[in-house]
Amino acid sequence: MAQTPAGPPRKPAPDTARRSEKSRRAIYDAALALVGEVGYARTTIEGIAARAGVGKQTIYRWWGSKGDVLLEAFLDLGDQAADRTAQPGRDPHALPDTGDLAADLKLVLRATVDELLDPRFEVPSRALAAEGLVNEQIGKEFVAKLLEPSLQLYVDRLRSAQRAGAVRPDVEPRIALELFVSPLAQRWLQRTAPISYAYVDTLVDYALYGIAPR
Amino acid sequence: MAQTPAGPPRKPAPDTARRSEKSRRAIYDAALALVGEVGYARTTIEGIAARAGVGKQTIYRWWGSKGDVLLEAFLDLGDQAADRTAQPGRDPHALPDTGDLAADLKLVLRATVDELLDPRFEVPSRALAAEGLVNEQIGKEFVAKLLEPSLQLYVDRLRSAQRAGAVRPDVEPRIALELFVSPLAQRWLQRTAPISYAYVDTLVDYALYGIAPR
Repeated sequence: MAQTPAGPPRKPAPDTARRSEKSRRAIYDAALALVGEVGYARTTIEGIAARAGVGKQTIYRWWGSKGDVLLEAFLDLGDQAADRTAQPGRDPHALPDTGDLAADLKLVLRATVDELLDPRFEVPSRALAAEGLVNEQIGKEFVAKLLEPSLQLYVDRLRSAQRAGAVRPDVEPRIALELFVSPLAQRWLQRTAPISYAYVDTLVDYALYGIAPR
Repeated sequence: MAQTPAGPPRKPAPDTARRSEKSRRAIYDAALALVGEVGYARTTIEGIAARAGVGKQTIYRWWGSKGDVLLEAFLDLGDQAADRTAQPGRDPHALPDTGDLAADLKLVLRATVDELLDPRFEVPSRALAAEGLVNEQIGKEFVAKLLEPSLQLYVDRLRSAQRAGAVRPDVEPRIALELFVSPLAQRWLQRTAPISYAYVDTLVDYALYGIAPR
């Protein structure tokens, strides 16, 4: 925080902080609910403010556009999910690394199945993804700020597996992760077929060991 | 064609058939161009008719809705692509089957890369896919009539590979094909990363032989 001529910044009083946190969460919830109900194009700052029970100016004080509000709302949703599965002493976003790559990937992908089937996440995510397909700028932000950082967690896990000899050294992790992440994403996004724990387990086994005879 | 009480159906005079074929193609071209330019929601039968230079009634005589026109326009686009790569004496839609599974899959996926990067195909496809994400009914038709039939061609090729011993007998072809099809689809649809011949070649190698050491 920049210092003002009046002196160093003051920490907000506990009541103010609590009120701000409550407003912030109400705004995230309202933004996610609205985009799920009416789509990205018809979601407005006014609509979010009304639903959250805050003034429009409260939103404009913290965010520049509805796109910014929504991206942060999704990031926050991801943080909440990460907190629920965090392991003590580790980065809450890092993938588990027990030394058993197949088991670790299945654990994470099963949790992703749960998340994708949770309506709180599913409906707004689908609306944002749809907007990203036709609106290149929103799509790029969505990929750069939400999707790619989560894919990099798989890159890290696969690199660790390469050091442990569980993945061939010539394999490119950024491509390899797509063998199990993209099929799940496509089934969910385009509703081409159901998703389940058994399905993601199968993807991991095929990706690790290949479909050709060994 | 059903017989009418007036007698057996007559073949249209050659001039009429040629005129119909020309109108049909003009309507497909107009529908694809419009949905690419203004999106699915703002594409109308009136707009397609005006752009194709035909009367609205011409369209309503052949199709029930704009969704029907668009689906057939995409099917026609796929038929044109299949005709260009057809092998004599074989179903033009079937995947090549030379006995070398990796080579056959790479050939088809490289052709798919070309198609996905062709603006005539890319822009309307993206618009239709985006609509399918949020409009469940359009999405289901898109998947059932366009996407799933093309995926079944991979199922057929993988079953043939299983009979030839090139794919393990316990592998489920409908899931296995997603290891190379879905990554390409996601990169293209969500613009997560570039697509190229080298990329799809890598996907095929990883899917066939796995990323774990052999």
